[in-house]
Amino acid sequence: MVLQTSASVVIALIMGFVGVGFVLWETRRVLSYDQGNALMRKISLAIQEGASAFLSREYRVIAIFVSIVAAVISLFLQWQTALCFVVGAIASAGAGYLGMYVAVRANVRTAAAASSGLHEGLRVAFGSGAIMGMAVVSFSLIGMTVLYLLFNGNPAQLTYITGFGFGASSIALFARVGGGIYTKAADVGADLVGKVEKGIPEDDPRNPAVIADNVGDNVGDVAGMGADLFESYSGSIIAAATLGAALGSADSSAAFIGLPFLVASVGVISSLFGIYMVIGQESDVTQPRTFLSNSFTHRFARLPRQFVAKIDENASLEDLLAALRRSVWGASVVILGLSLLAVLLSGVDFNYWLVILVGLIAGNAIAYATEYFTSYTDKPTQAIAKATQTGAATTIIQGIAVGMMSTVLPVLTVAMAILLSIWLGYKADGTIAAGLYAVALAGVGMLSTLGVTLATDAYGPVADNAGGIAEMSGLPKEVRHRTDALDSLGNTTAATGKGFAIGSAVLTALALLAAYVTAAKIDNLNILGPTMLPGILIGAMMPYLFSALTMMAVGKAAHEIVLEVRRQFHEIPGLMEGTGEPDYKTCVAISTESALREMILPGSLAVVVPLVIGFVLGKEALAGMLVGTMSSGFLLAVMMANAGGAWDNAKKWIETGQYGGKGSDAHKAAVVGDTVGDPFKDTSGPSLNILIKLMTIVSLVFATSFGTGWLNF
Amino acid sequence: MVLQTSASVVIALIMGFVGVGFVLWETRRVLSYDQGNALMRKISLAIQEGASAFLSREYRVIAIFVSIVAAVISLFLQWQTALCFVVGAIASAGAGYLGMYVAVRANVRTAAAASSGLHEGLRVAFGSGAIMGMAVVSFSLIGMTVLYLLFNGNPAQLTYITGFGFGASSIALFARVGGGIYTKAADVGADLVGKVEKGIPEDDPRNPAVIADNVGDNVGDVAGMGADLFESYSGSIIAAATLGAALGSADSSAAFIGLPFLVASVGVISSLFGIYMVIGQESDVTQPRTFLSNSFTHRFARLPRQFVAKIDENASLEDLLAALRRSVWGASVVILGLSLLAVLLSGVDFNYWLVILVGLIAGNAIAYATEYFTSYTDKPTQAIAKATQTGAATTIIQGIAVGMMSTVLPVLTVAMAILLSIWLGYKADGTIAAGLYAVALAGVGMLSTLGVTLATDAYGPVADNAGGIAEMSGLPKEVRHRTDALDSLGNTTAATGKGFAIGSAVLTALALLAAYVTAAKIDNLNILGPTMLPGILIGAMMPYLFSALTMMAVGKAAHEIVLEVRRQFHEIPGLMEGTGEPDYKTCVAISTESALREMILPGSLAVVVPLVIGFVLGKEALAGMLVGTMSSGFLLAVMMANAGGAWDNAKKWIETGQYGGKGSDAHKAAVVGDTVGDPFKDTSGPSLNILIKLMTIVSLVFATSFGTGWLNF
Repeated sequence: MVLQTSASVVIALIMGFVGVGFVLWETRRVLSYDQGNALMRKISLAIQEGASAFLSREYRVIAIFVSIVAAVISLFLQWQTALCFVVGAIASAGAGYLGMYVAVRANVRTAAAASSGLHEGLRVAFGSGAIMGMAVVSFSLIGMTVLYLLFNGNPAQLTYITGFGFGASSIALFARVGGGIYTKAADVGADLVGKVEKGIPEDDPRNPAVIADNVGDNVGDVAGMGADLFESYSGSIIAAATLGAALGSADSSAAFIGLPFLVASVGVISSLFGIYMVIGQESDVTQPRTFLSNSFTHRFARLPRQFVAKIDENASLEDLLAALRRSVWGASVVILGLSLLAVLLSGVDFNYWLVILVGLIAGNAIAYATEYFTSYTDKPTQAIAKATQTGAATTIIQGIAVGMMSTVLPVLTVAMAILLSIWLGYKADGTIAAGLYAVALAGVGMLSTLGVTLATDAYGPVADNAGGIAEMSGLPKEVRHRTDALDSLGNTTAATGKGFAIGSAVLTALALLAAYVTAAKIDNLNILGPTMLPGILIGAMMPYLFSALTMMAVGKAAHEIVLEVRRQFHEIPGLMEGTGEPDYKTCVAISTESALREMILPGSLAVVVPLVIGFVLGKEALAGMLVGTMSSGFLLAVMMANAGGAWDNAKKWIETGQYGGKGSDAHKAAVVGDTVGDPFKDTSGPSLNILIKLMTIVSLVFATSFGTGWLNF
Repeated sequence: MVLQTSASVVIALIMGFVGVGFVLWETRRVLSYDQGNALMRKISLAIQEGASAFLSREYRVIAIFVSIVAAVISLFLQWQTALCFVVGAIASAGAGYLGMYVAVRANVRTAAAASSGLHEGLRVAFGSGAIMGMAVVSFSLIGMTVLYLLFNGNPAQLTYITGFGFGASSIALFARVGGGIYTKAADVGADLVGKVEKGIPEDDPRNPAVIADNVGDNVGDVAGMGADLFESYSGSIIAAATLGAALGSADSSAAFIGLPFLVASVGVISSLFGIYMVIGQESDVTQPRTFLSNSFTHRFARLPRQFVAKIDENASLEDLLAALRRSVWGASVVILGLSLLAVLLSGVDFNYWLVILVGLIAGNAIAYATEYFTSYTDKPTQAIAKATQTGAATTIIQGIAVGMMSTVLPVLTVAMAILLSIWLGYKADGTIAAGLYAVALAGVGMLSTLGVTLATDAYGPVADNAGGIAEMSGLPKEVRHRTDALDSLGNTTAATGKGFAIGSAVLTALALLAAYVTAAKIDNLNILGPTMLPGILIGAMMPYLFSALTMMAVGKAAHEIVLEVRRQFHEIPGLMEGTGEPDYKTCVAISTESALREMILPGSLAVVVPLVIGFVLGKEALAGMLVGTMSSGFLLAVMMANAGGAWDNAKKWIETGQYGGKGSDAHKAAVVGDTVGDPFKDTSGPSLNILIKLMTIVSLVFATSFGTGWLNF
């Protein structure tokens, strides 16, 4: 039985709406929770205002950028591509806005819910993450399918839809790079004056930058991570559909185009199941307030209860982690069953189901490897903690060595996944082109359960904020214990989420690269071709340049925050004593302004350099450059993210009492490592995902415009 | 007029003997200098014994390694290749031995000569460097040409001579990786106990690890750098000759094979001229003692005196630097003239002369860029110094950002050089193969003046040691001022030398890669080929794995030194008071043993991984891997070398009195940066040159043994 492409696309559209339905219902459920006492509400309100200030300022910049690029696309390419570009930007921005809107409201509700129990807190925070996850998935699916149907489902017009990916990439650039600079500038700025100069604790309401810091967590890890994965998710589907269109006969190519949409569709169901495993337990303490949500919860709860996580008050970090892991694995099992059905319905070779399996396993393997290298229960991070005994220098050396070592497994995993996918596709249809299609499909498989995997990431900052609010509003000790537990969980999932994000970025970029090579009609891609190696070298250099710029940007922006915080402590009477009122808004405004300003140079490089290389050195050199950026960026991103995560957790391990605990010399050395790791793991490292994908999709969109270059070999 | 290949080779052989003649004469001159007082002789003797202990121990390990590999080559390939392999290893080891032999004797003579004047000190130290430089060049030339003539000059048998490169690579592996671990383990170990725990100054004779530290300088920067560039020098000539053999008709291919030998030959003359510009001034203070050297010096001095550097007592660092730079530039001017003659004599297209020019300019451009990013008179290093004000963390972040930024110019330079070379070759002979030959020739051009460029590098440790000896033996203040000035000069040339070494490694590796592709008979090198991208990713990962291993090795080896130094201070009575005798030899032995032990794992990876990939994934995947390693390794090596150099000099700048000077908080932060930078710039970074070249040459030697791999696409 062969399912028509349009049928698959319609199914995907319907599943998109199912996802939207869940998002609306879950938003209602989360927002119906109690907001705690007046002080908590006040703090939360300040965070909400800060977030909305950042978003509105950012969206204004984005609007200008999107208009210009859309105009350029209309002028040099087609208006349809420009339309898709705008829709992609709006869809991604919309998902990000919604996720942020809920996250900055769920934080205070998590803190309040934690008063009644650990599991209630988890249900609120995870619910907020699930909203982000499902919003990304469903907005992406609806956007792409509507555009597809609008263009009559003509496969040749699939190229327009690459514009959707470009739009999503542009938002990701702002969200990830700008957000990454924002979050670390605020964090470092707040710490340098607050903790170091003034000796007040972290998350102290007297610190004028404390709200900016809390806003930053959401900006970076909710909006940034969401936009990053929105781009990967859309990109992998677009790439698979584009490569599928070139395969086999008209009939079989219809099946190839439809399959990624089908897999994504069943991924929605699987993700919902996974999410249910965490939030699906009826609370026996706090009842949602409205009739509607009550009734939904009731019906939901009738589903088999044994799948749902049971978390009691004394749950350890391992228990909480196990609950999230079970939900991701549960979703994976469901998707494997359902995607087998999708493969059978599509009538394509059984091998393609194995390809999806390869993608899923690779994603989980990378996450597992990341956890091993960044968790303080394992040797690598403990080795860093040990190195703190001989000072800051050995801490840094060991951390960088661990970060470098941690690249081995992810690289081997991705290399194996590519190799196996190509081999399976090649065996199924006898061409390397089918193999490249399989790589794209593996990417779709890896990202199919994004609804739930992103939920585990986007949950983190909500829990982190909840901890801050509990601290600032002086909630009882047992509540703060619970929010701390939830926060620790978030730190671990943040690290694994980063591994997953970069792994999927590489697969997506590779699939987009294959689509680019097809679209640019490149025949000779010899690695020793005249412009290829210069292209590869320049490409390999880009992540270094980009990282240097983003790290320096954090330094500059943090410096401005430091000056402002110092000014406020100097000029506002009674601030230190707690009688004066800090001016949170100015710090938020400075973080916002400097983050958006500092991202312009690295951001434009990502867009402009591929165009320059494509026009000056030609389309082959550009292909080489993309390969160089992909390989070098992958390594650097994993190294930076994992070194940063490991330093962070080495510090946390010492804080549990190892090597003298907090305040010891070892701890001081660990703090140096942690501070170095901040821009590594939250700014430069994750921004490289965007660099890799954005450069590739820019090349794909403009593929037909490039020639042989000036040297004209 | 077309010069026959064999004529060119014979000229190269003769020039090799001219080089040997200079080496013998100069060795005699340097060794004829006064060795200073009894204490100085005693210290120098300890260093000599330590160096000879390391070398004899190292050469025993090498002998085993070389025997095994030679047996494997004889068994699986041809005995001729095995013979070349052994000769290459012996030639490189011989040059290294001679260079070390003189260096550890020139140090004390430099200190003594500095008593009579700055220029005399420079003449001794630079003379020692020149011996290393010319020994490398002439031993390489003699070895290759004798083997070439032995095999009757049959171009098809050029493949045997790749064995010579492999042999040189193996020595480089031991010298660079083992030496790099040795030098930093001793340095860090000596500092951690001496400076930090015991509070005694650097280079204090009471420190049991002080001799190991001094030996380490020579092991790393004389023997290590020498073997590294011996490999590049030989590799570039072999690659050019191999690629040339496949070009044009029998007649023109003879010219193509001969040209690199001719260029190398005139390079010997140019280098000697450059060396003369520094050492060629007749001393008016210390007269060499023997009749023979006196007479030679006298005749030498009759050459036009205006070329010779004039350095007076008040010479600043800039003046000294200018003297060395002038000598390198002088050699470049001479080589340009003479190589034009070589191109005309060979009868090849004039474009090939431009190619040599491109190589020379690229080498100098990389050196210039390196100097800009690592010298404290320029902004990047000053920015690091500024960042020390906010602590160790910002120092590290800024240093890494500077290191990353510093990759841009070298990458663009090398990319441009490749592009231009290919284009010039393509325009000359109409094929891309001619373009790849031109790349190899550009590498030969870049390295043609190696005799003098290596002299400026290998000079450094001699001056460094001289400073240590002056310090330890309490020479008068003005003498120590002079040795300090000579030492500072060495630090700058060490940084630029590293940039030059990695730049030439990339060109050489690329040329060897092209030779590999030809030898392995690969037709389809599509960058999207089934095994290519996995190969590239795995290749890009190798430098990270290798660097992680070498950095951890330094940590482990340094830890052993720390334990031993602590033990001696604890167990030897009167050591701290200066009445007890430290046991230098045990520290030397520990450094030696641990360096040789710790280099086994990274070293074997470099040899084994290409073979595994070649057999399991096939020859295309191996080509991909080499490209991945080359691009990623280039970036990482430049980043690490320059970040390390910049941290070092940022510390030195603060020590001139900036930001509170020595002992301030800023200085403490700078010391953290410097310590992190030590394994960056002296162990892991430079070792990547070897990784890049060794993996390529192993692939080239075994090229004909690889098939399509197990997946058999």
